[in-house]
Amino acid sequence: MQLGLIGLGKMGGNMRERVRRAGHEVVGYDRNPEVADVASLAELVEKLSAPRVVWVMVPAGDPTRETVEQLGELLSPGDVVVDGGNSKFTDDKLHADHLAPKGIGYVDCGVSGGIWGLQNGYALMVGGSDEDVAKVQPVFDALKPEGEFGFIHAGGVGAGHYTKMVHNGIEYGIMQAYAEGYELLSKSEIVDDVPGTIKSWRKGTVIQSWLLDLLDRALDEDPTLAKIAAYSADSGEGRWTVDEAVRLAVPLPAISASLFARFASRQDDSPTMKAVAALRKQFGGHAVKAE
Amino acid sequence: MQLGLIGLGKMGGNMRERVRRAGHEVVGYDRNPEVADVASLAELVEKLSAPRVVWVMVPAGDPTRETVEQLGELLSPGDVVVDGGNSKFTDDKLHADHLAPKGIGYVDCGVSGGIWGLQNGYALMVGGSDEDVAKVQPVFDALKPEGEFGFIHAGGVGAGHYTKMVHNGIEYGIMQAYAEGYELLSKSEIVDDVPGTIKSWRKGTVIQSWLLDLLDRALDEDPTLAKIAAYSADSGEGRWTVDEAVRLAVPLPAISASLFARFASRQDDSPTMKAVAALRKQFGGHAVKAE
Amino acid sequence: MQLGLIGLGKMGGNMRERVRRAGHEVVGYDRNPEVADVASLAELVEKLSAPRVVWVMVPAGDPTRETVEQLGELLSPGDVVVDGGNSKFTDDKLHADHLAPKGIGYVDCGVSGGIWGLQNGYALMVGGSDEDVAKVQPVFDALKPEGEFGFIHAGGVGAGHYTKMVHNGIEYGIMQAYAEGYELLSKSEIVDDVPGTIKSWRKGTVIQSWLLDLLDRALDEDPTLAKIAAYSADSGEGRWTVDEAVRLAVPLPAISASLFARFASRQDDSPTMKAVAALRKQFGGHAVKAE
Amino acid sequence: MQLGLIGLGKMGGNMRERVRRAGHEVVGYDRNPEVADVASLAELVEKLSAPRVVWVMVPAGDPTRETVEQLGELLSPGDVVVDGGNSKFTDDKLHADHLAPKGIGYVDCGVSGGIWGLQNGYALMVGGSDEDVAKVQPVFDALKPEGEFGFIHAGGVGAGHYTKMVHNGIEYGIMQAYAEGYELLSKSEIVDDVPGTIKSWRKGTVIQSWLLDLLDRALDEDPTLAKIAAYSADSGEGRWTVDEAVRLAVPLPAISASLFARFASRQDDSPTMKAVAALRKQFGGHAVKAE
Repeated sequence: MQLGLIGLGKMGGNMRERVRRAGHEVVGYDRNPEVADVASLAELVEKLSAPRVVWVMVPAGDPTRETVEQLGELLSPGDVVVDGGNSKFTDDKLHADHLAPKGIGYVDCGVSGGIWGLQNGYALMVGGSDEDVAKVQPVFDALKPEGEFGFIHAGGVGAGHYTKMVHNGIEYGIMQAYAEGYELLSKSEIVDDVPGTIKSWRKGTVIQSWLLDLLDRALDEDPTLAKIAAYSADSGEGRWTVDEAVRLAVPLPAISASLFARFASRQDDSPTMKAVAALRKQFGGHAVKAE
Repeated sequence: MQLGLIGLGKMGGNMRERVRRAGHEVVGYDRNPEVADVASLAELVEKLSAPRVVWVMVPAGDPTRETVEQLGELLSPGDVVVDGGNSKFTDDKLHADHLAPKGIGYVDCGVSGGIWGLQNGYALMVGGSDEDVAKVQPVFDALKPEGEFGFIHAGGVGAGHYTKMVHNGIEYGIMQAYAEGYELLSKSEIVDDVPGTIKSWRKGTVIQSWLLDLLDRALDEDPTLAKIAAYSADSGEGRWTVDEAVRLAVPLPAISASLFARFASRQDDSPTMKAVAALRKQFGGHAVKAE
Repeated sequence: MQLGLIGLGKMGGNMRERVRRAGHEVVGYDRNPEVADVASLAELVEKLSAPRVVWVMVPAGDPTRETVEQLGELLSPGDVVVDGGNSKFTDDKLHADHLAPKGIGYVDCGVSGGIWGLQNGYALMVGGSDEDVAKVQPVFDALKPEGEFGFIHAGGVGAGHYTKMVHNGIEYGIMQAYAEGYELLSKSEIVDDVPGTIKSWRKGTVIQSWLLDLLDRALDEDPTLAKIAAYSADSGEGRWTVDEAVRLAVPLPAISASLFARFASRQDDSPTMKAVAALRKQFGGHAVKAE
Repeated sequence: MQLGLIGLGKMGGNMRERVRRAGHEVVGYDRNPEVADVASLAELVEKLSAPRVVWVMVPAGDPTRETVEQLGELLSPGDVVVDGGNSKFTDDKLHADHLAPKGIGYVDCGVSGGIWGLQNGYALMVGGSDEDVAKVQPVFDALKPEGEFGFIHAGGVGAGHYTKMVHNGIEYGIMQAYAEGYELLSKSEIVDDVPGTIKSWRKGTVIQSWLLDLLDRALDEDPTLAKIAAYSADSGEGRWTVDEAVRLAVPLPAISASLFARFASRQDDSPTMKAVAALRKQFGGHAVKAE
């Protein structure tokens, strides 16, 4: 089949390649003309035969919204827009509601796999109507890993980004768990071989996983992580996970602790801990560290 | 080689089988004569040629300590005792110090793998001197999974149980992360297929793991976990992990949250939440649920 | 001065009384005619001389929004609306923006004090322009406690409800801290007199506070809290506090833990802990409690 | 009555003064001869008439244990030793068991009040037999604040330090709650007057407390806490509180979060967050901050 693909960055570029390898025709557009197949969205739409499937792979928020709105002007009834970016699930309803009066379908698709996806396939979490999803299915089949896993049509519009959001929240918690254990090993007076211990866990243990494989790999490159700062960004999904848990009254202690640890890692001078130190000084005359 | 094995329960019985399959001779003792190869520790020791390796696989605490003391009476200089149970790492030093004056070596070995170990091999985390560990190595090789992973000589006496303790602490955190995500999916108004979502994550995602495979398996058996109570025991290692983190001033928010969630799951009537409700009533006249 | 007061429930009724005791004229409206001074909002507005101050004390969300909109129809340029309810701070901007084109001012006021406010005064946290706040100041002075504390004009529109929100978030954390300590005392094998210990802390300790006085009071009434269920509602501000912390990347581990503990207290059958139990069963053959 | 007092540092010196003001005779010993009334423990014991009460106010751990042992050599049956230091409650049983065969009583006393105690009185939490406590009561009455609060005989030996430990654990949680709220106010875009907001909360609010008064005081001295580093020590009781909660299976999320926040505040380069950053880099090619 034909696929229009908008956004040919690190992820989008690899996805174009994987879909092409499966024998489909991909017409790619990007603001950067060096990687683009066409010069404009209008040209992209023109090159596709109806009913069209156009996959949007641009940053969440304004860029995605604007692209969806432009496609609303260019596409025809029966076409389908797929948002494969990291949009918040609440945006999906807005996008779908914008396109529906024009007869254009909308599917949201959370994509996992990062830089490994080209080779291993991308895990896809999809939301939308059965009819719309069916139109995109050949592309999903090309992108997903081989075998029975790695694809789910989780529910209606929004369910794809929702499940991807939860996936990422879990990811935060798992990474924090490994990292806390790593620190404990590192501080122990009786463990001599921390990287060896991590490596040994890769098989036969309860905690074997792909993330553990990656931690081993990181320690192979840098056995004490000396070259990496104790500083972690967060990409939005972790925050949305906590917000959604708060909305639904779901206790989320481990995942929220993981998010807060990232926040704290980026602070040079925590006002919270200044206030704690100030209080200790006030009631106990405890010495404080001067700034 | 020959191995004396004390404790032939669920774990010990399977380990005897796996060591035998590797071509070694195992003399097993258990209080239960139906599964034992010999009738007493003395007979077990008698059947082995020096230098002997005797593996203790009995409950941590008093049973292990008493067994080690009895072996101290029965074994000869040059023999080695392996504690493969779930002992706290601080017990290992006591055991080693008890045996050292008699010339008997001591190795501690944390074992992971549960009911899957017979087939897949057991991950082994080992502490002790190079000399003592070398005497046991053929047995370790028989028990461990095939390939380069699943065995680590992590340090001196205690390092085996220490790393196993940290492994289990990490396990708590990972399980809690998946479980929190599972709850969020379950409560969502837009996700229709929770078990399918979990299943799809088994490949191509960042969070693919053996524990995720098991969660999928559990949901295959019981798609809403309707038959399982929201009640989780804890086996000691999680507590020791938190205690050790506190001793070493290591922040452990996610793992400790996981432990506390288990504690809370076993409470019918939390005094903490009674006190919170009582306070709300006092200052706000908020209605409280009567007991 | 004159004050129009809309909403004469538990809080509003007491506030009317306290403002009257200070010598001001209060015209109160409530849907319940038995407590109302006038039969309609229109009549209330009619009874006040311009420039009018009308204080809205109705539930947050739709009721407050609808009341503000009705007042927008009835009031005149130069009048001021005060929202003294528990609105989210983001609503304040919407309300102010609705009234501004009509020349009507808007002040938001977080009110603390609960059932004790009539006697002790209400702590007031206020947001709005200097000009608008000045028009309400005599009423604020009547409501606030005597002395230098208990009133703050914290910033522009929204700052009053914002600071009240943070106040309540802190309140969650403090209550949880006392409650956790209470549980630990209750479980101790060597503390014989838990209520006496709590009572003794009311003076001379670092943790003396009004909430501690209330905990003592609750234990005087019910020394083991036997009549109170381990079940705690939450009123919104705690959730908003966590959401806002997430938005601002502020680590909030203790306050969020307090909120999650309340969520958990209301669950009969936590899906999270079902999943943890299911996993333990899968990998370890650990017995689970059947539902 | 007469009191022997060992340890005349910041706390002990003020306590001597307060007991003397109440009309009692205090014989003080300290290693520093400039503040001591006698030159040795032997001389101190000599100056007191039997039955003697000797109050130990030296650092917990070895110094306290050694002092108790020396007193065991010097005192007579019927005398009582009071440990008023910050000992762990498990030490108390050891001390009492050491003295009991000699007929010497033992009382443990947790003391709160810090640098404010001389003026306001010290809150006292006491463990021991009724008979032993009665012998010390006049001194307790001199030290405690005026009125009905500030003294508790909480149970047998150890109960005093136990309740003081819980008091301090609660203190950690309350301080963290205020501090988190302070940070949120500081980061808000709409709150203009953070110190004023804190000050206003001192009366009429649910969260009014002595610690809040101190936070206000700290902000009076330094409105942005610019001179205080975001670094907080911890003195032991918080750790013991978490350990004890773990032992008793009591969920302690807020207090443990407060302790972990202190640990984290003292880390320049968290291994946990290095590992998280390393993992992000591995799976996502996310840029990391170089060390």
